[in-house]
Amino acid sequence: VSAELVAAIAAARDAATSPADVAAVVAASTDPTSSDAQLAAWLMAVRLRGLADAAAADLTAAMAASGETLAWPDGPAVVDKHSTGGVGDKTSLVLAPLLAALGYRVPMVSGRSLGLTGGTLDKLEAISGFDVHLDPPAARRALDDAGCFIAAASDRLAPADARLYRLRDVTATIDSVPLIAASILSKKLAAGVRHLVLDVKWGSGAFMGDFAAAERLAATLVALGSAAGMRCAAALCPMDEPLGRAVGNAAEVREALVVLGGSGGAVRDAAVALARRAARLAGDDLDDAAVARPLDDGRAYEAFARMCAAQNASDPAAVAVPAHRVDVSAPRAGRGRFDAHATALAAAALGATRTHPGGPVDVSASVDLHVADGDAVAAGDVIATVGCADATAAAHAAGLVAAAWREVGELWEPAPTVAAWIEPDSETP
Amino acid sequence: VSAELVAAIAAARDAATSPADVAAVVAASTDPTSSDAQLAAWLMAVRLRGLADAAAADLTAAMAASGETLAWPDGPAVVDKHSTGGVGDKTSLVLAPLLAALGYRVPMVSGRSLGLTGGTLDKLEAISGFDVHLDPPAARRALDDAGCFIAAASDRLAPADARLYRLRDVTATIDSVPLIAASILSKKLAAGVRHLVLDVKWGSGAFMGDFAAAERLAATLVALGSAAGMRCAAALCPMDEPLGRAVGNAAEVREALVVLGGSGGAVRDAAVALARRAARLAGDDLDDAAVARPLDDGRAYEAFARMCAAQNASDPAAVAVPAHRVDVSAPRAGRGRFDAHATALAAAALGATRTHPGGPVDVSASVDLHVADGDAVAAGDVIATVGCADATAAAHAAGLVAAAWREVGELWEPAPTVAAWIEPDSETP
Repeated sequence: VSAELVAAIAAARDAATSPADVAAVVAASTDPTSSDAQLAAWLMAVRLRGLADAAAADLTAAMAASGETLAWPDGPAVVDKHSTGGVGDKTSLVLAPLLAALGYRVPMVSGRSLGLTGGTLDKLEAISGFDVHLDPPAARRALDDAGCFIAAASDRLAPADARLYRLRDVTATIDSVPLIAASILSKKLAAGVRHLVLDVKWGSGAFMGDFAAAERLAATLVALGSAAGMRCAAALCPMDEPLGRAVGNAAEVREALVVLGGSGGAVRDAAVALARRAARLAGDDLDDAAVARPLDDGRAYEAFARMCAAQNASDPAAVAVPAHRVDVSAPRAGRGRFDAHATALAAAALGATRTHPGGPVDVSASVDLHVADGDAVAAGDVIATVGCADATAAAHAAGLVAAAWREVGELWEPAPTVAAWIEPDSETP
Repeated sequence: VSAELVAAIAAARDAATSPADVAAVVAASTDPTSSDAQLAAWLMAVRLRGLADAAAADLTAAMAASGETLAWPDGPAVVDKHSTGGVGDKTSLVLAPLLAALGYRVPMVSGRSLGLTGGTLDKLEAISGFDVHLDPPAARRALDDAGCFIAAASDRLAPADARLYRLRDVTATIDSVPLIAASILSKKLAAGVRHLVLDVKWGSGAFMGDFAAAERLAATLVALGSAAGMRCAAALCPMDEPLGRAVGNAAEVREALVVLGGSGGAVRDAAVALARRAARLAGDDLDDAAVARPLDDGRAYEAFARMCAAQNASDPAAVAVPAHRVDVSAPRAGRGRFDAHATALAAAALGATRTHPGGPVDVSASVDLHVADGDAVAAGDVIATVGCADATAAAHAAGLVAAAWREVGELWEPAPTVAAWIEPDSETP
């Protein structure tokens, strides 16, 4: 029991957190003998009373400095992207090699799936041999060889955040804007990222249901990231439909490979929009055609293949194939779209995500959507195919995908890729 | 990690606690495998969002039922008193035997000192041989023989409260009215108390600095106690000066013995006022003279002696004597009084209270105040004497007692014993 920690809890409770209070909390978070109960009480106090901008900036910096930090030698700009998560969002798999092909360095530290949320690491593990664990020398080599890597966070990177995150998960304190922002940004800072595009989603398949909440988080992320010395911008992106035509680890890798091969669609649009903004943060004003060129001429695919090779996967196209597949028929005729949340339920039923940290995942799990975005179908048309390792799970998930199909009116239009951009105050005219 | 507990935390966070949520929290509090972090987050949520009356009543009842409960055979009314704590407050030592001499049964479960707050159990341990640990058969015998006992709570009595209290102590969640009230009342309910007088103090020497906060707590205590089926009333008592002329374990026992021997003063006034109200709660309308009679005719002293005998102390007057004594002189001439908080600092410096749970206490520690209540003194008059086992500590404490002396104006008058009574709504006209 630490008196400094009790004082920090009382200060958070009274909305009067000082720099010394933040230091006490972060020190306790990396001290294995410190009390989970005290940290949990502090988290709930912050969840209910908020955290002033200065204290949130202190927290971000202290968590970033709480363990090892990665430093990159002089060279091309170090850029990255973080998304708050969406259904079928495989943008990272396209964006990292695209930015690498454009000449930037992308040391992307990513996460695992949990609940209804997919995880980029689980998707990559659908590729035969892909190793998401890189020690710092291997990470440097991957960046030299491919210009990018996508790897798991070492438990030595921002360990204070790791402990606080585990506690938030069981104490109903996940949905705190300053805690979310400090958690995201501290890991990016510790990974040596200097230019960061944030993809903040709202909608049925997103962590945040409404636009205003997403906007608040985006503004906090941009303000805190800028205070910490990063160049940041945040895209506000709708997430009521799955992004693209594939949901589930293997299916999403296959769709990413198609986009890296030059095909169009929602995933390409998202990757190009985010890459263009990342380039601008790094000082390069490119148009969409210039940004997209590596997708069309094979350089982005090549960067992806080099990243796979650096991460122990000799063939990027050696993607897990589900043992069982079931087609899904349209329940009725009409124009329709898939609901993101309902589709995520189907993917979870296939085993695409884990129910608890450390639990198993079926990397072959796949929901392939054959129609979307207001397409017209006849009753009985095959509108999707699901697949996974277990026949019973596949049959069950097929029903869930059918239930995810929503009729839309004649006037319905697809949502925009990016609804709005949030930039630092200093860059707004 | 329990999903019910996460739901209960979220409900408390959103000020929407249901009976099932309370049940989940209390069940977790008695489950050694449950998470301290989750309980701590719940406590902070309640500290910041409050708890509706119905939920606080549920919590009180569930904590009372969380372990063993004491049941007393048919017979005289079972009455008790609880004080929120004050400096020099030895009222329990007089009140329990006085109520016993009046014919009631008083199974008083009491606590230890901590910080600046004295503890009745530590005071009793200044009597040679006094044993504060009674198993249920010994407790029944003590009640039969003496009509009262004063004992430590068994760790099997309201164990949910014990765990939550320990967590509150380190998570800045002590000062929550519903949590304080549920904690106090659950132990009294588990001890089989049916009529309860509450002594809620405010002032420099009390847990609550201002009258309004004390009034809020008193109202909550009376409402929750009544909802739980007890007859309750609460006295609001000022605590800016020590109660009586003695502070510190041995000194307080000696003053209690003097009051039990028929002497007057603030302690007698407090004991008579509280005893009279306890008798009324038990259905007996006595006047002050009838209530005080056992103090004057020796029956209260006799009940105290029988209680001591039942608790292994053959001589109630065999009280620890401090090895070192130091007189305190008036720093200047004038009318004055002692400040309660400053006097408590002196008693703590003597070792009268413990700095941490389980730490040592000097039972011989004594602050004897020779003047009080606006008495006129000349500079250099001996106004107090301190004593304890350690000469250096005694000398240091003497300076603190001198610093506790406050001059008062000509118009100053002593505070009343009881400023106001709070009763259940149903008994207010």
